[in-house]
Amino acid sequence: MIDRLVIVGLGLIGGSLARALKKQGAVGEVVGTGRREASLIRGQELGVIDRWTLDLGEAVKDADMVVIAAPTLAAEKVLESLKPHMRPDLIVTDVASVKGSLVAAAERIFGEVPPQFVPGHPIAGSEQSGVEAAKDDLYVGHRVILTPLPNTDAKACEKVRTMWEATGAEVVDMDVAEHDVVLAATSHLPHVLAYGLVDALAQSGSAQAIFRFAAGGFRDFTRIASSDPVMWHDIVRANRNAVLESMDTFTEHLAELRKAIESDDSGAILATFERAKKARDEQFLTQYQVKGKGQ
Amino acid sequence: MIDRLVIVGLGLIGGSLARALKKQGAVGEVVGTGRREASLIRGQELGVIDRWTLDLGEAVKDADMVVIAAPTLAAEKVLESLKPHMRPDLIVTDVASVKGSLVAAAERIFGEVPPQFVPGHPIAGSEQSGVEAAKDDLYVGHRVILTPLPNTDAKACEKVRTMWEATGAEVVDMDVAEHDVVLAATSHLPHVLAYGLVDALAQSGSAQAIFRFAAGGFRDFTRIASSDPVMWHDIVRANRNAVLESMDTFTEHLAELRKAIESDDSGAILATFERAKKARDEQFLTQYQVKGKGQ
Repeated sequence: MIDRLVIVGLGLIGGSLARALKKQGAVGEVVGTGRREASLIRGQELGVIDRWTLDLGEAVKDADMVVIAAPTLAAEKVLESLKPHMRPDLIVTDVASVKGSLVAAAERIFGEVPPQFVPGHPIAGSEQSGVEAAKDDLYVGHRVILTPLPNTDAKACEKVRTMWEATGAEVVDMDVAEHDVVLAATSHLPHVLAYGLVDALAQSGSAQAIFRFAAGGFRDFTRIASSDPVMWHDIVRANRNAVLESMDTFTEHLAELRKAIESDDSGAILATFERAKKARDEQFLTQYQVKGKGQ
Repeated sequence: MIDRLVIVGLGLIGGSLARALKKQGAVGEVVGTGRREASLIRGQELGVIDRWTLDLGEAVKDADMVVIAAPTLAAEKVLESLKPHMRPDLIVTDVASVKGSLVAAAERIFGEVPPQFVPGHPIAGSEQSGVEAAKDDLYVGHRVILTPLPNTDAKACEKVRTMWEATGAEVVDMDVAEHDVVLAATSHLPHVLAYGLVDALAQSGSAQAIFRFAAGGFRDFTRIASSDPVMWHDIVRANRNAVLESMDTFTEHLAELRKAIESDDSGAILATFERAKKARDEQFLTQYQVKGKGQ
């Protein structure tokens, strides 16, 4: 039970967390804060939060837990604003898509990463955004990754885990660097490829014809290119090294496939396509059914 | 009205055409033929076809129209088998995803492309396949591309157009080469990228973790990597030059984006993502809503 929870940056992610915890009776009061007054007003109207303030210091006074529900680069700024208000008994966690850059920022800001800061990342999202889209079952059956550091307080970690488990999520611990490498491969790279492909086609001479004759496969493949450009720009910058590495691995692989196609190496082309289909079908049609959308 | 229609290769595409034409009263008798007896038996049981035979010559006797509803490379073999049974009044069309290779095959087989052969490609499909999945509304609101040649008989062309229009499709004429370039960009390249990405990840050291933490964006992005590997292997081989060219254009574009990420060129990254989102949203959320799936 969290007596007083503060959500910094009230949108789909923070709002859905608040709704889920309220539904489960896992939270007393939820206080909203952030820069967008309209979201906070709307959040209170909708019953997502109980009250709000634009003053971060006032928001976290007497709070047990602060969830920084802001995108990657914005989260760094929130950590900075939080500095004068930090208390040993105030647990802080976040939802940013890149963990290495935020941990580095915490180290820079605080000298060392505060033991009561538990970096986290719920692997959930939606094409929708904003507090209006918040729903109490967003995290059911989804995974939340926590990346505690050697000096992270075990009790703080446990409280963050308990909070997420109350939403119906499965909580998994991971190393900071491993998190960023895995997410680069499964999320950041696909976004870069989708944005890159659509932009390449849009700039080609036959863009009109190309889009006109695109069918459902193309629509699915490029859906993530309709994601928020600012958010993904932040993510790619924050996770630069892992993103570049995943791009290089992919590009090398694609060059091999290109060679096979150019030399009409039927066996190599078929083997690649068959391995891919097998891997995807195995992962998505059986054991690792994941319900998440976006991010 | 087509008095007698022959479908060569009875699956989702040919079966759905037969069902749609029957529903509209646009066809008299539908005769199925092909190599898979089980599909033909099932097709008759389901009422998709009226009768069937394994003998192509018998099937096309007294027929008005033959639809070669076979994948790209198989369609070439069907054309070859059709040769001894061709008549000037027998209209032949097909549904293959690549047009240049089939037109070249027709030229090779017949000396010149027969005037009554109208190459075609319905931009429709489904994750499902087989005659059991055939449905009478598969083509409603979808596009069918015809690629007639200078010597193609205008009446034959008109009959094929009328047939597809009866299914609820919008029929568009296109140049053979343009068709293959456009489809390489919107369909063949995305399949190559999706297969390539999944295979690259499957072969990486952290494949298990990668797939385990893949969310909905990844599932959408890689859906087409669950397509039939043999069919896509055929398509990529048949459309080799256009596929290689589209891969190169994409790779160059990706290299630019990589440079922007490496040099942390915030403006260039954001501009690329924003252009892509704008292009995709414009094409899919407004004028060019296409209902198709697959291919």
